[in-house]
Amino acid sequence: MKATAELQFVPMGKVSVRQEISQVLALLAQYDFIIETHASGTNIEGALTDILAAVEKVHAMLHEEGVIRLLSYLKLETRTDKVPTLAGKRL
Amino acid sequence: MKATAELQFVPMGKVSVRQEISQVLALLAQYDFIIETHASGTNIEGALTDILAAVEKVHAMLHEEGVIRLLSYLKLETRTDKVPTLAGKRL
Amino acid sequence: MKATAELQFVPMGKVSVRQEISQVLALLAQYDFIIETHASGTNIEGALTDILAAVEKVHAMLHEEGVIRLLSYLKLETRTDKVPTLAGKRL
Amino acid sequence: MKATAELQFVPMGKVSVRQEISQVLALLAQYDFIIETHASGTNIEGALTDILAAVEKVHAMLHEEGVIRLLSYLKLETRTDKVPTLAGKRL
Repeated sequence: MKATAELQFVPMGKVSVRQEISQVLALLAQYDFIIETHASGTNIEGALTDILAAVEKVHAMLHEEGVIRLLSYLKLETRTDKVPTLAGKRL
Repeated sequence: MKATAELQFVPMGKVSVRQEISQVLALLAQYDFIIETHASGTNIEGALTDILAAVEKVHAMLHEEGVIRLLSYLKLETRTDKVPTLAGKRL
Repeated sequence: MKATAELQFVPMGKVSVRQEISQVLALLAQYDFIIETHASGTNIEGALTDILAAVEKVHAMLHEEGVIRLLSYLKLETRTDKVPTLAGKRL
Repeated sequence: MKATAELQFVPMGKVSVRQEISQVLALLAQYDFIIETHASGTNIEGALTDILAAVEKVHAMLHEEGVIRLLSYLKLETRTDKVPTLAGKRL
Protein backbone atom coordinates (compact mmCIF):
# COMPACT_ATOMS: atom_id res chain seq x y z
CA MET A 1 0.00 0.00 0.00
CA LYS A 2 1.46 3.31 -1.13
CA ALA A 3 1.36 6.19 1.36
CA THR A 4 2.42 9.75 1.90
CA ALA A 5 3.67 10.75 5.31
CA GLU A 6 5.15 13.51 7.38
CA LEU A 7 7.69 12.48 10.01
CA GLN A 8 9.05 14.69 12.76
CA PHE A 9 11.46 13.38 15.38
CA VAL A 10 11.96 15.30 18.63
CA PRO A 11 14.84 14.15 20.83
CA MET A 12 14.26 15.48 24.33
CA GLY A 13 17.16 16.72 26.45
CA LYS A 14 18.83 19.01 23.94
CA VAL A 15 17.85 22.43 22.63
CA SER A 16 19.50 21.93 19.24
CA VAL A 17 18.95 18.61 17.49
CA ARG A 18 20.42 19.42 14.11
CA GLN A 19 22.92 16.56 14.28
CA GLU A 20 20.25 14.00 15.12
CA ILE A 21 18.03 15.18 12.27
CA SER A 22 20.94 14.81 9.85
CA GLN A 23 21.33 11.22 11.02
CA VAL A 24 17.61 10.62 10.47
CA LEU A 25 17.79 11.97 6.92
CA ALA A 26 20.80 9.77 6.16
CA LEU A 27 18.86 6.72 7.34
CA LEU A 28 15.73 7.66 5.36
CA ALA A 29 17.87 8.12 2.23
CA GLN A 30 18.63 4.38 2.30
CA TYR A 31 14.99 3.61 1.47
CA ASP A 32 13.15 3.83 -1.83
CA PHE A 33 11.36 7.02 -0.80
CA ILE A 34 10.65 10.35 -2.40
CA ILE A 35 11.73 12.76 0.35
CA GLU A 36 10.96 16.44 0.81
CA THR A 37 12.35 18.15 3.89
CA HIS A 38 10.75 21.30 5.24
CA ALA A 39 10.87 23.42 8.37
CA SER A 40 8.45 21.28 10.40
CA GLY A 41 9.35 17.76 9.37
CA THR A 42 10.14 15.47 6.48
CA ASN A 43 7.55 14.49 3.89
CA ILE A 44 7.86 11.02 2.41
CA GLU A 45 6.22 9.10 -0.39
CA GLY A 46 6.70 5.34 -0.40
CA ALA A 47 5.32 2.00 0.71
CA LEU A 48 3.51 2.25 4.06
CA THR A 49 5.37 -0.85 5.25
CA ASP A 50 8.72 0.77 4.50
CA ILE A 51 7.76 4.08 6.10
CA LEU A 52 6.78 2.35 9.34
CA ALA A 53 9.93 0.18 9.26
CA ALA A 54 12.02 3.32 8.83
CA VAL A 55 10.32 4.98 11.80
CA GLU A 56 11.21 2.01 13.99
CA LYS A 57 14.81 2.09 12.76
CA VAL A 58 15.08 5.79 13.52
CA HIS A 59 13.97 5.21 17.11
CA ALA A 60 16.55 2.42 17.53
CA MET A 61 19.34 4.40 15.86
CA LEU A 62 18.85 7.62 17.81
CA HIS A 63 18.82 5.76 21.12
CA GLU A 64 22.08 4.04 20.09
CA GLU A 65 23.45 7.50 19.34
CA GLY A 66 22.67 8.55 22.90
CA VAL A 67 19.20 10.08 22.76
CA ILE A 68 17.52 9.21 26.06
CA ARG A 69 13.95 10.12 25.22
CA LEU A 70 12.55 10.35 21.72
CA LEU A 71 9.17 11.65 20.61
CA SER A 72 7.98 11.28 17.05
CA TYR A 73 5.03 12.88 15.32
CA LEU A 74 3.73 11.14 12.22
CA LYS A 75 1.05 12.01 9.72
CA LEU A 76 0.16 9.15 7.38
CA GLU A 77 -2.19 9.18 4.40
CA THR A 78 -3.47 6.38 2.19
CA ARG A 79 -6.29 6.44 -0.36
CA THR A 80 -7.99 4.05 -2.73
CA ASP A 81 -9.30 6.42 -5.39
CA LYS A 82 -5.84 7.28 -6.69
CA VAL A 83 -2.20 6.68 -5.86
CA PRO A 84 -1.20 9.12 -3.11
CA THR A 85 1.82 11.23 -4.05
CA LEU A 86 3.51 14.23 -2.53
CA ALA A 87 3.19 16.00 -5.88
CA GLY A 88 -0.55 15.41 -5.90
CA LYS A 89 -0.96 16.94 -2.46
CA ARG A 90 0.58 20.24 -3.42
CA LEU A 91 -1.79 22.93 -4.66
CA MET B 1 11.52 -1.81 22.17
CA LYS B 2 8.63 -0.74 24.39
CA ALA B 3 6.76 2.41 23.43
CA THR B 4 3.84 4.60 24.31
CA ALA B 5 1.77 6.06 21.53
CA GLU B 6 -1.27 8.09 20.65
CA LEU B 7 -3.13 7.08 17.52
CA GLN B 8 -5.86 9.07 15.81
CA PHE B 9 -7.47 7.91 12.58
CA VAL B 10 -9.41 10.40 10.44
CA PRO B 11 -11.43 8.91 7.57
CA MET B 12 -12.19 11.67 5.09
CA GLY B 13 -15.54 11.86 3.34
CA LYS B 14 -17.85 11.47 6.32
CA VAL B 15 -18.77 13.88 9.09
CA SER B 16 -19.34 11.16 11.69
CA VAL B 17 -16.80 8.36 11.89
CA ARG B 18 -17.98 6.65 15.06
CA GLN B 19 -18.47 3.30 13.33
CA GLU B 20 -14.98 3.33 11.83
CA ILE B 21 -13.41 4.19 15.20
CA SER B 22 -15.25 1.27 16.81
CA GLN B 23 -13.73 -1.01 14.17
CA VAL B 24 -10.28 0.41 14.92
CA LEU B 25 -10.68 -0.25 18.63
CA ALA B 26 -11.80 -3.83 17.95
CA LEU B 27 -8.69 -4.40 15.86
CA LEU B 28 -6.37 -2.84 18.47
CA ALA B 29 -7.93 -5.04 21.16
CA GLN B 30 -6.47 -8.09 19.41
CA TYR B 31 -2.95 -6.96 20.31
CA ASP B 32 -1.13 -7.20 23.59
CA PHE B 33 -1.58 -3.49 24.31
CA ILE B 34 -2.63 -1.42 27.26
CA ILE B 35 -5.24 0.86 25.69
CA GLU B 36 -6.73 4.12 26.95
CA THR B 37 -9.25 5.87 24.76
CA HIS B 38 -9.88 9.59 25.11
CA ALA B 39 -11.59 12.36 23.23
CA SER B 40 -8.70 13.07 20.84
CA GLY B 41 -7.34 9.62 20.11
CA THR B 42 -6.31 6.31 21.61
CA ASN B 43 -3.28 5.95 23.85
CA ILE B 44 -1.39 2.68 23.65
CA GLU B 45 1.41 1.03 25.55
CA GLY B 46 3.12 -1.91 23.87
CA ALA B 47 5.96 -3.05 21.65
CA LEU B 48 6.83 -0.42 19.02
CA THR B 49 6.86 -3.15 16.36
CA ASP B 50 3.33 -4.19 17.26
CA ILE B 51 2.04 -0.62 17.38
CA LEU B 52 3.36 0.10 13.89
CA ALA B 53 2.00 -3.24 12.59
CA ALA B 54 -1.40 -2.37 14.03
CA VAL B 55 -1.35 1.04 12.33
CA GLU B 56 -0.72 -0.62 8.98
CA LYS B 57 -3.54 -3.10 9.60
CA VAL B 58 -5.94 -0.29 10.47
CA HIS B 59 -5.20 1.45 7.17
CA ALA B 60 -5.81 -1.79 5.25
CA MET B 61 -8.97 -2.66 7.19
CA LEU B 62 -10.64 0.74 6.91
CA HIS B 63 -10.04 0.85 3.16
CA GLU B 64 -11.60 -2.62 2.89
CA GLU B 65 -14.56 -1.25 4.84
CA GLY B 66 -15.02 1.46 2.22
CA VAL B 67 -13.00 4.41 3.50
CA ILE B 68 -11.59 6.15 0.40
CA ARG B 69 -9.07 8.43 2.04
CA LEU B 70 -7.56 7.87 5.47
CA LEU B 71 -5.36 10.20 7.48
CA SER B 72 -3.68 9.07 10.67
CA TYR B 73 -1.92 11.11 13.30
CA LEU B 74 0.55 9.27 15.52
CA LYS B 75 2.61 10.32 18.50
CA LEU B 76 5.26 7.78 19.50
CA GLU B 77 7.58 7.83 22.48
CA THR B 78 10.50 5.61 23.44
CA ARG B 79 13.12 6.14 26.12
CA THR B 80 16.18 4.36 27.45
CA ASP B 81 16.31 5.63 31.03
CA LYS B 82 13.18 3.76 32.08
CA VAL B 83 10.42 1.65 30.58
CA PRO B 84 7.85 4.01 29.02
CA THR B 85 4.34 3.43 30.36
CA LEU B 86 1.06 5.28 30.04
CA ALA B 87 0.80 5.28 33.85
CA GLY B 88 4.21 6.93 34.14
CA LYS B 89 3.22 9.72 31.78
CA ARG B 90 0.26 10.81 33.84
CA LEU B 91 0.87 13.50 36.41
CA MET C 1 -17.28 29.46 18.87
CA LYS C 2 -17.07 26.43 21.11
CA ALA C 3 -14.24 23.98 20.47
CA THR C 4 -12.60 20.84 21.73
CA ALA C 5 -8.84 20.63 21.67
CA GLU C 6 -5.84 18.58 22.60
CA LEU C 7 -2.76 20.50 23.73
CA GLN C 8 0.70 19.05 24.20
CA PHE C 9 3.66 21.22 25.18
CA VAL C 10 7.20 19.94 24.65
CA PRO C 11 10.00 21.99 26.23
CA MET C 12 13.25 21.09 24.51
CA GLY C 13 16.48 20.79 26.50
CA LYS C 14 15.30 18.60 29.35
CA VAL C 15 14.48 14.90 29.45
CA SER C 16 11.87 15.25 32.19
CA VAL C 17 9.38 18.09 31.91
CA ARG C 18 6.99 17.13 34.67
CA GLN C 19 7.44 20.44 36.47
CA GLU C 20 6.71 22.48 33.36
CA ILE C 21 3.57 20.45 32.62
CA SER C 22 2.32 21.08 36.15
CA GLN C 23 2.75 24.80 35.55
CA VAL C 24 0.81 24.50 32.30
CA LEU C 25 -2.06 22.73 34.03
CA ALA C 26 -2.15 25.41 36.75
CA LEU C 27 -2.43 28.08 34.08
CA LEU C 28 -5.15 26.23 32.16
CA ALA C 29 -7.11 25.79 35.39
CA GLN C 30 -7.60 29.57 35.51
CA TYR C 31 -9.81 29.43 32.42
CA ASP C 32 -13.42 28.34 32.09
CA PHE C 33 -12.45 25.02 30.52
CA ILE C 34 -13.44 21.42 30.98
CA ILE C 35 -10.05 19.72 31.23
CA GLU C 36 -9.09 16.06 30.88
CA THR C 37 -5.45 15.15 31.17
CA HIS C 38 -4.11 11.96 29.63
CA ALA C 39 -0.78 10.37 28.81
CA SER C 40 -0.26 12.23 25.52
CA GLY C 41 -1.62 15.67 26.24
CA THR C 42 -4.46 17.64 27.76
CA ASN C 43 -7.94 17.66 26.28
CA ILE C 44 -9.93 20.85 26.64
CA GLU C 45 -13.46 21.96 25.97
CA GLY C 46 -14.09 25.69 25.87
CA ALA C 47 -14.31 28.78 23.70
CA LEU C 48 -11.86 28.63 20.79
CA THR C 49 -10.79 32.20 21.57
CA ASP C 50 -9.93 31.25 25.13
CA ILE C 51 -8.09 28.07 24.11
CA LEU C 52 -5.88 30.00 21.71
CA ALA C 53 -5.29 32.74 24.28
CA ALA C 54 -4.25 30.11 26.81
CA VAL C 55 -1.80 28.58 24.34
CA GLU C 56 -0.15 31.95 23.85
CA LYS C 57 0.04 32.47 27.62
CA VAL C 58 1.62 29.06 28.10
CA HIS C 59 4.36 29.90 25.61
CA ALA C 60 5.08 33.20 27.38
CA MET C 61 4.99 31.65 30.86
CA LEU C 62 7.28 28.71 30.10
CA HIS C 63 9.86 31.00 28.52
CA GLU C 64 9.72 33.20 31.63
CA GLU C 65 10.28 30.04 33.67
CA GLY C 66 13.47 29.37 31.74
CA VAL C 67 12.43 27.13 28.85
CA ILE C 68 14.64 28.10 25.91
CA ARG C 69 12.80 26.34 23.12
CA LEU C 70 9.16 25.30 23.25
CA LEU C 71 7.23 23.15 20.80
CA SER C 72 3.49 22.75 21.06
CA TYR C 73 1.20 20.32 19.29
CA LEU C 74 -2.46 21.27 19.07
CA LYS C 75 -5.51 19.49 17.74
CA LEU C 76 -8.57 21.73 17.44
CA GLU C 77 -12.09 20.78 16.47
CA THR C 78 -15.16 22.88 15.76
CA ARG C 79 -18.46 21.87 14.21
CA THR C 80 -21.75 23.46 13.26
CA ASP C 81 -24.13 20.50 13.45
CA LYS C 82 -23.90 20.22 17.22
CA VAL C 83 -21.98 21.70 20.12
CA PRO C 84 -18.59 19.97 20.31
CA THR C 85 -17.91 18.43 23.72
CA LEU C 86 -15.28 16.11 25.10
CA ALA C 87 -18.05 13.84 26.36
CA GLY C 88 -19.54 13.61 22.88
CA LYS C 89 -16.24 12.55 21.38
CA ARG C 90 -15.85 9.54 23.63
CA LEU C 91 -17.22 6.26 22.35
CA MET D 1 6.57 36.86 20.39
CA LYS D 2 7.81 35.56 17.06
CA ALA D 3 6.94 31.97 16.18
CA THR D 4 7.16 29.35 13.49
CA ALA D 5 4.22 27.07 12.92
CA GLU D 6 2.78 24.35 10.79
CA LEU D 7 -0.97 24.48 10.19
CA GLN D 8 -3.07 21.73 8.65
CA PHE D 9 -6.83 22.03 8.30
CA VAL D 10 -8.94 18.92 7.73
CA PRO D 11 -12.59 19.51 6.80
CA MET D 12 -14.50 16.31 7.50
CA GLY D 13 -17.25 15.15 5.15
CA LYS D 14 -15.46 15.48 1.83
CA VAL D 15 -12.76 13.35 0.25
CA SER D 16 -11.19 16.22 -1.68
CA VAL D 17 -10.69 19.50 0.15
CA ARG D 18 -8.59 21.33 -2.41
CA GLN D 19 -11.06 24.22 -2.66
CA GLU D 20 -11.16 24.73 1.11
CA ILE D 21 -7.36 24.73 1.33
CA SER D 22 -7.19 27.38 -1.38
CA GLN D 23 -9.53 29.52 0.70
CA VAL D 24 -7.31 29.00 3.75
CA LEU D 25 -4.22 30.09 1.84
CA ALA D 26 -6.02 33.19 0.57
CA LEU D 27 -6.92 34.12 4.14
CA LEU D 28 -3.39 33.49 5.44
CA ALA D 29 -1.98 35.66 2.64
CA GLN D 30 -3.70 38.67 4.22
CA TYR D 31 -1.38 38.47 7.22
CA ASP D 32 2.22 39.57 7.57
CA PHE D 33 3.49 35.99 7.42
CA ILE D 34 6.24 34.19 5.59
CA ILE D 35 4.38 31.20 4.17
CA GLU D 36 5.69 27.92 2.80
CA THR D 37 3.16 25.36 1.62
CA HIS D 38 4.07 21.68 1.43
CA ALA D 39 2.33 18.35 1.02
CA SER D 40 1.34 17.97 4.68
CA GLY D 41 0.45 21.49 5.70
CA THR D 42 1.45 25.12 5.59
CA ASN D 43 4.50 26.45 7.40
CA ILE D 44 4.29 29.97 8.73
CA GLU D 45 6.66 32.45 10.30
CA GLY D 46 5.10 35.41 12.08
CA ALA D 47 3.87 36.81 15.36
CA LEU D 48 2.35 34.08 17.56
CA THR D 49 -0.63 36.35 18.25
CA ASP D 50 -1.29 36.72 14.53
CA ILE D 51 -0.89 33.01 13.83
CA LEU D 52 -3.43 32.10 16.49
CA ALA D 53 -5.81 34.84 15.29
CA ALA D 54 -5.54 33.46 11.76
CA VAL D 55 -6.34 29.95 12.96
CA GLU D 56 -9.51 31.21 14.61
CA LYS D 57 -10.49 33.10 11.44
CA VAL D 58 -9.95 29.99 9.33
CA HIS D 59 -12.31 27.99 11.54
CA ALA D 60 -14.97 30.71 11.26
CA MET D 61 -14.52 31.14 7.50
CA LEU D 62 -14.65 27.45 6.60
CA HIS D 63 -17.82 26.95 8.63
CA GLU D 64 -19.37 29.93 6.81
CA GLU D 65 -18.36 28.25 3.56
CA GLY D 66 -20.31 25.17 4.56
CA VAL D 67 -17.81 22.92 6.33
CA ILE D 68 -19.75 21.12 9.05
CA ARG D 69 -16.85 19.68 11.05
CA LEU D 70 -13.32 21.04 11.00
CA LEU D 71 -10.21 19.55 12.54
CA SER D 72 -6.95 21.46 12.65
CA TYR D 73 -3.48 20.23 13.51
CA LEU D 74 -0.99 22.87 14.63
CA LYS D 75 2.67 22.73 15.48
CA LEU D 76 3.98 25.89 17.14
CA GLU D 77 7.54 26.77 18.09
CA THR D 78 8.97 29.68 20.04
CA ARG D 79 12.46 30.13 21.46
CA THR D 80 14.38 32.69 23.44
CA ASP D 81 17.96 32.00 22.34
CA LYS D 82 17.39 33.28 18.82
CA VAL D 83 14.59 34.51 16.59
CA PRO D 84 12.76 31.46 15.21
CA THR D 85 12.59 31.45 11.41
CA LEU D 86 11.53 28.92 8.83
CA ALA D 87 14.89 29.41 7.09
CA GLY D 88 16.73 28.57 10.31
CA LYS D 89 14.82 25.34 10.74
CA ARG D 90 15.87 23.95 7.38
CA LEU D 91 19.01 21.85 7.35
